[in-house]
Amino acid sequence: DASRKMTENGVSSRAKVLTIDTMNPTVKKVEYAVRGPIVQRAMELEKELSEGMKKPFAEVIKANIGDAHAMGQQPITFFRQVLALCSYPELLNDSTFPEDAKSRARRILQSCGGNSMGSYSASQGIDSVRHDVARYIKRRDDGVPCDPDNIYLTTGASDGIVTMLKLLVCGEGATRTGIMISIPQYPLYSAALAELGAVQINYYLNEQKCWSLDISELQRSLDEARQHCNPRALCIINPGNPTGQVQSRQCIEDVIRFAAKERLFLMADEVYQDNVYAEGCQFHSFKKVLFEMGPEYSNTVELVSFHSTSKCYMGECGFRGGYMEIINLDSEVKAQLTKLVSVRLCPPVPGQALMDLVVNPPQPGEPSHEKFIKERTTTLCALAEKAKLTEQVLNTVQGISCNPVQGAMYSFPCITIPEKAIKEATDNGQKPDMFYCMKLLEETGICLVPGSGFGQRDGTYHFRMTILPPKDKLKILLTKVKEFHQKFTQQYS
Amino acid sequence: DASRKMTENGVSSRAKVLTIDTMNPTVKKVEYAVRGPIVQRAMELEKELSEGMKKPFAEVIKANIGDAHAMGQQPITFFRQVLALCSYPELLNDSTFPEDAKSRARRILQSCGGNSMGSYSASQGIDSVRHDVARYIKRRDDGVPCDPDNIYLTTGASDGIVTMLKLLVCGEGATRTGIMISIPQYPLYSAALAELGAVQINYYLNEQKCWSLDISELQRSLDEARQHCNPRALCIINPGNPTGQVQSRQCIEDVIRFAAKERLFLMADEVYQDNVYAEGCQFHSFKKVLFEMGPEYSNTVELVSFHSTSKCYMGECGFRGGYMEIINLDSEVKAQLTKLVSVRLCPPVPGQALMDLVVNPPQPGEPSHEKFIKERTTTLCALAEKAKLTEQVLNTVQGISCNPVQGAMYSFPCITIPEKAIKEATDNGQKPDMFYCMKLLEETGICLVPGSGFGQRDGTYHFRMTILPPKDKLKILLTKVKEFHQKFTQQYS
Repeated sequence: DASRKMTENGVSSRAKVLTIDTMNPTVKKVEYAVRGPIVQRAMELEKELSEGMKKPFAEVIKANIGDAHAMGQQPITFFRQVLALCSYPELLNDSTFPEDAKSRARRILQSCGGNSMGSYSASQGIDSVRHDVARYIKRRDDGVPCDPDNIYLTTGASDGIVTMLKLLVCGEGATRTGIMISIPQYPLYSAALAELGAVQINYYLNEQKCWSLDISELQRSLDEARQHCNPRALCIINPGNPTGQVQSRQCIEDVIRFAAKERLFLMADEVYQDNVYAEGCQFHSFKKVLFEMGPEYSNTVELVSFHSTSKCYMGECGFRGGYMEIINLDSEVKAQLTKLVSVRLCPPVPGQALMDLVVNPPQPGEPSHEKFIKERTTTLCALAEKAKLTEQVLNTVQGISCNPVQGAMYSFPCITIPEKAIKEATDNGQKPDMFYCMKLLEETGICLVPGSGFGQRDGTYHFRMTILPPKDKLKILLTKVKEFHQKFTQQYS
Repeated sequence: DASRKMTENGVSSRAKVLTIDTMNPTVKKVEYAVRGPIVQRAMELEKELSEGMKKPFAEVIKANIGDAHAMGQQPITFFRQVLALCSYPELLNDSTFPEDAKSRARRILQSCGGNSMGSYSASQGIDSVRHDVARYIKRRDDGVPCDPDNIYLTTGASDGIVTMLKLLVCGEGATRTGIMISIPQYPLYSAALAELGAVQINYYLNEQKCWSLDISELQRSLDEARQHCNPRALCIINPGNPTGQVQSRQCIEDVIRFAAKERLFLMADEVYQDNVYAEGCQFHSFKKVLFEMGPEYSNTVELVSFHSTSKCYMGECGFRGGYMEIINLDSEVKAQLTKLVSVRLCPPVPGQALMDLVVNPPQPGEPSHEKFIKERTTTLCALAEKAKLTEQVLNTVQGISCNPVQGAMYSFPCITIPEKAIKEATDNGQKPDMFYCMKLLEETGICLVPGSGFGQRDGTYHFRMTILPPKDKLKILLTKVKEFHQKFTQQYS
């Protein structure tokens, strides 16, 4: 029987039903560098250190992922007070909690079935939270109207992005859906497209112009893609991940005009909307710019925008909160979207509660307002300072060139890798920047992600590092990267 | 320009990129009755009532979904105390919290990055939680070993089920993956299979024998499916949803033998493992039975078992907590699974914390033990009582026949629908049981789900109702169903 074989100890063993050769081939194609082999090795090193093994470093410093609290950032007190009150409503009788936290908790609980966060919510999200989100967006966008019915709460932004891509994918061969994504990109996009079997269409950001987006490059990329697939959507991350640029208002307008002209569905990943540091830079939402362009655009261009509780000043990744706003989505498709999200029942309710607090924080005059502003400001100022520090120090290193970190939480410097190192890496079947980052990790304990995990122009090499470590650790990290790069360059020259 | 059209007010309007005709066709095929049109109508009615509109009833009673807290079930105090402590660790200084809650919270926080639930966890789930799950399973299964490395924490059980199905699906046409599911089934399965484009293979539970599973029916179903697809997995829900049966140990052994003989991957949905009410019934995990069958089976049969924080005595649906245990999964496939779940970063951390408490509740001698046992017992006894009451009352109605609710949270009675009603429904393009349930809703405010949403033998009709409403409300509900059925039968006879 071909489906049976003998194992070492003589017990007959059936061949597995599910093997690498018989599993879903689209899943095999998925790659996700942010949690890839380099991070697995970092975790092994941490374990080895904790077991007393000797290493050339005392601790592993992880700058691979935008995980603010893990890097020591403190949560906003008010948010956590309300979450505690919602988790254990007995605390509503506790006089040490501020009144505004209590009233916020009461309001959230009243909109939960049985006044419990343990109930399922509506699949689209809690009604009152969606209303608060709509009010937040209207305020943010200087009065552009927002319909709560267009808000869907999500399990982090990733969930919303995958859901929208899922709706868009169809066709086979030359009519297969293509989705335009920036290169460098956040690997959720490439992973989701691989899994959905959609065609990934790359457009390159302009590193020489601070990772800005050129419409001519969009056009080139689209025209080429039209030869072999059906491009239907254009994804933009602003502020940029992994590249840290902040798009100008003009650029956003140009992108919208391009999408309208070329009939592309716009997907705007705006999870870093509060993370803008560089002078002269400002966050402009795609929604606002779209509506300022008049009804010719605002009545027609299909747009979805994503936000999350994971980034900005709150950094609450573990709660998996988020929302998306859909604009001009066909009403029948919207009904299908609502049906689709209902299969997963609802996004986590604590994450929804947190999203509510983010869009409806303490107001002037409320007891928690002052503390909230202070905590938020402290976090955002520290990030701005670290953004600057990172750029400055990296640019002192010969062979490293780093654009300003205008926003988001990452720098994505270009690194010069000597030919000898490229050859050694290639001989080992490794990408040169992976080779570089692995060596950096083994020698210094610093965990960065190679640029190849995000995409980069052929023949260029980068790494992504977060600016999240506390300032003193970030300084050590930057010094170590500098020393490593010098040593590495010398070694392979 | 064909892609432009004029709207009523004369503004030119582009044709939408994404329409019902150009969206993903597999998404269109998805159906999810538990949150389908009947529930939407129930929500409308609630809104109309709240706006003062007159109805033949004063409130809508929702018995359509297993949402315990929404039906008034109280959360376990200890669980919520620990969650509050984890959310706002300042409370660790509060002397009103019991010491065991504090020590549990400290342990959870210590395994979170930066001691915060706001950090991402490992994608497979927090290490210490996976260890606690493994200890729980070993205890539950009388010492059968459990490897924490085989535990994956999930966003509710649904997430785990979809993830495993995703791995299994491949091939085209006659080699397309087929997945065997029970009929009646929980519609997550049919929805996920539709979305993945897998072939749904129905096997029918035996209503005459209390919804038990006959191996001969499995064989029939499999043999027929082999004509047109490649059957690869067999899904079982035990205790049953929507049918409430509890499988005997013998039956589980037979199913495992069948899966081994036919080379099927086993998926055991065991989220109701604490919900067993009927005398003589007992929950047996597939894992335990598998290991008791000896190495011939335990070394070879591929099994995944799912659990959740949403059901049992805790009913914490909103937190979206869950785990799955994989047995005999090919190691390369396991690496692919780990990669796949990493794209979504991690399951919600509050849900992971809750899962930890479920598998590691207060122990004898700890300050919260007595209260925990009392709360758990109260909830489970109330459910057992309501299971009995539901069966008894429904069986007093001529034209309704209800199997004992041995476990889970639902009854799925067979209802006789008069020919005239069937004709009227069919003439209106409605399924007869949808017609019945819609009328019930409009006339009494009671929201049940038609059997057609779960699947049933042709020519039979059912509804699913949860046993979750508080006893006094459940009594009213059952009386109203009884009266409605009598009236309905008379009207259409």
